[in-house]
Amino acid sequence: MTTQELIDQIKRKKSFLAIGLDVDLNKIPPHLLGTEDPIFEFNKAIIDATHHLCVAYKPNTAFYEAYGIKGWKALEKTIQYLNDKYPEIFTIADAKRGDIGNTSTMYAKAFFEDLAFDSVTVAPYMGKDSVEPFLAFKDKHTILLALTSNQGAFDFQTKTIEGKDVYKQVLETSKTWENSENLMYVVGATKAEYLTDIRRIVPESFLLVPGVGAQGGSLQEVCKYGLTANVGLLINSSRGIIYASTSTDFAEAAAEKAKVLQQEMEAILMAQ
Amino acid sequence: MTTQELIDQIKRKKSFLAIGLDVDLNKIPPHLLGTEDPIFEFNKAIIDATHHLCVAYKPNTAFYEAYGIKGWKALEKTIQYLNDKYPEIFTIADAKRGDIGNTSTMYAKAFFEDLAFDSVTVAPYMGKDSVEPFLAFKDKHTILLALTSNQGAFDFQTKTIEGKDVYKQVLETSKTWENSENLMYVVGATKAEYLTDIRRIVPESFLLVPGVGAQGGSLQEVCKYGLTANVGLLINSSRGIIYASTSTDFAEAAAEKAKVLQQEMEAILMAQ
Repeated sequence: MTTQELIDQIKRKKSFLAIGLDVDLNKIPPHLLGTEDPIFEFNKAIIDATHHLCVAYKPNTAFYEAYGIKGWKALEKTIQYLNDKYPEIFTIADAKRGDIGNTSTMYAKAFFEDLAFDSVTVAPYMGKDSVEPFLAFKDKHTILLALTSNQGAFDFQTKTIEGKDVYKQVLETSKTWENSENLMYVVGATKAEYLTDIRRIVPESFLLVPGVGAQGGSLQEVCKYGLTANVGLLINSSRGIIYASTSTDFAEAAAEKAKVLQQEMEAILMAQ
Repeated sequence: MTTQELIDQIKRKKSFLAIGLDVDLNKIPPHLLGTEDPIFEFNKAIIDATHHLCVAYKPNTAFYEAYGIKGWKALEKTIQYLNDKYPEIFTIADAKRGDIGNTSTMYAKAFFEDLAFDSVTVAPYMGKDSVEPFLAFKDKHTILLALTSNQGAFDFQTKTIEGKDVYKQVLETSKTWENSENLMYVVGATKAEYLTDIRRIVPESFLLVPGVGAQGGSLQEVCKYGLTANVGLLINSSRGIIYASTSTDFAEAAAEKAKVLQQEMEAILMAQ
C-alpha cells in the first residue's frame, strides 16, 4: 500500500485508529475456546465489527508465537482474511525484528511476501544494514522503534549520545538510509511532550503511537504536537478495545470503544 | 540448563563451538528438496554428524519464519530432536526479540516453554522492562545484543552516551537488572579489539561470538582477549560449516569443518 492510499483511507473514514490484535487465550470470551481456532474466530469478529472505524490492524507476533504452530496459523489466517475482505486496511506486523543484512532480508520476506503485511516494526540497535533490507521493498513500510511507550525507554533511548538523545540520533541517522521514504516511526503516547522535538526531525513521517488508553497516554496531547497536514499519525489501542467485554457481545463492545476513539479523532480532524 | 552444565560440557568435549542452523533452501543440497521436510532433514543430518564437536546449536528464527508454517514446524522438529536425542546440547533461539513487559513474557514463553530452548537472543533498545521478563525463567539464559558483528554496529552501539559507548552502557546497565546472572551477551568476532574493555565490565559472563569465518573474525584474537577461567565463550559458525558441501556428503563435510574449529579450540584450552 502506498502512503497516499493510507492517507486517503484516513480522510474517508475520518479515523487514524489502529487496533492491536494481541490475542491472549486467557482474556478472550470463554465461549470461543471450544471453536477450532479461537484466536482467528476472535480476530474475525473484532475485524468485522470495527473495520469501518479504524484504518489499520496491528497483530503483535509475540501473542501468536506463544501458541506455536496453532498461533502462527491463526496469524496467517488473520492477515489473509484482512487482505481478502478488507484490502483497504493498512496491516502492521508488530514484530520488532532486526538482524544482520541477509537475515533481515529473510524477515522482510516472511512479513512482506509470505504473510503479505503492508508494514513491519523493526528495532534500530543493529543499525543501517539491519534496516535497509526491509526498506528495499516497494510500497511496504518499515516502522522503526524510536521512542517506545514503556518505562525502559529511559534506560537507553533518552540518554545523550554526543549531545543528542539516542532516539533523536536514530531518527536523524535513519533519514540518510536508502529508501528512507518507506520509514515510519514508533513513538509512545506516554511521551507526548517529546513530539515537538520529534516533528522537527521528521516533520512529515507517519508515527505509530501506542500507549493511548491502557498505558495512560492522551490522544489530545499526541495530536496537539504530532498531527501534520496529512495527519501523519496512527494511534494504536489494543486491550482497551479488544477486551472491552468477555461476554458474547465482545465484538459489539469493541466497536463501541473503537467508535468513541474514532469520534474523538473525527472532531480533531474537523477542528484542524 | 545451568551455566555449570554448559561449562562441564565444554570441558568434556574440549570445544566451545556453536553451530548456526540458518537453513536457506537455495543453499542446501538439492537432493534433499524432494523430502517431506527438507529443512529438518538437513538439520538432522548436520546435528548427527557434528554434535560431538560442538556444545550448542543456534537456529536463527528468520530462516524458519521465511517459510511460514512449514518453517515453524521445521524449527519445532529441530529443537525437539535436539532435546530428545542430545539433551546435553545448549540450544539458542537466535530471535533478537524484545517488547514491552507483558509482550516480552509471551516471547519468553514461546521460546523457553513452548519450544523449550535453553536461551534466546534479545535486543536491548527497549530497556529493563523489555528484558527482565526473559530473565525471570530459572535455568534459562537471555543473550543480550551488546556489540554486533555487522557494519551497522557503528551507527549507534559504538556512539558515546554521557562519556561511555552505548554498548558499554548496555553491559553496565543490564548488570543491575533482576536475575542478571541469567544474562549472556552477543559480541561480534569482527570487533575482537573491544573485548578487553568488555571483559572489564563483564569479567565472567558468557559471550556468544558470531562472525568467525565467513564474516572475517579471528578465533585466536577473540580467545586472546575474551577467554575466562571457565572459558566464557561460545563461538558461532554458521555458513562456514553447514554449507561446506552441497553434495550428498554435506554432513561429513560439515563435520570436517567443525572438527578443524574444535581442534583449534582444544589447542587453545590446552595452552591455557
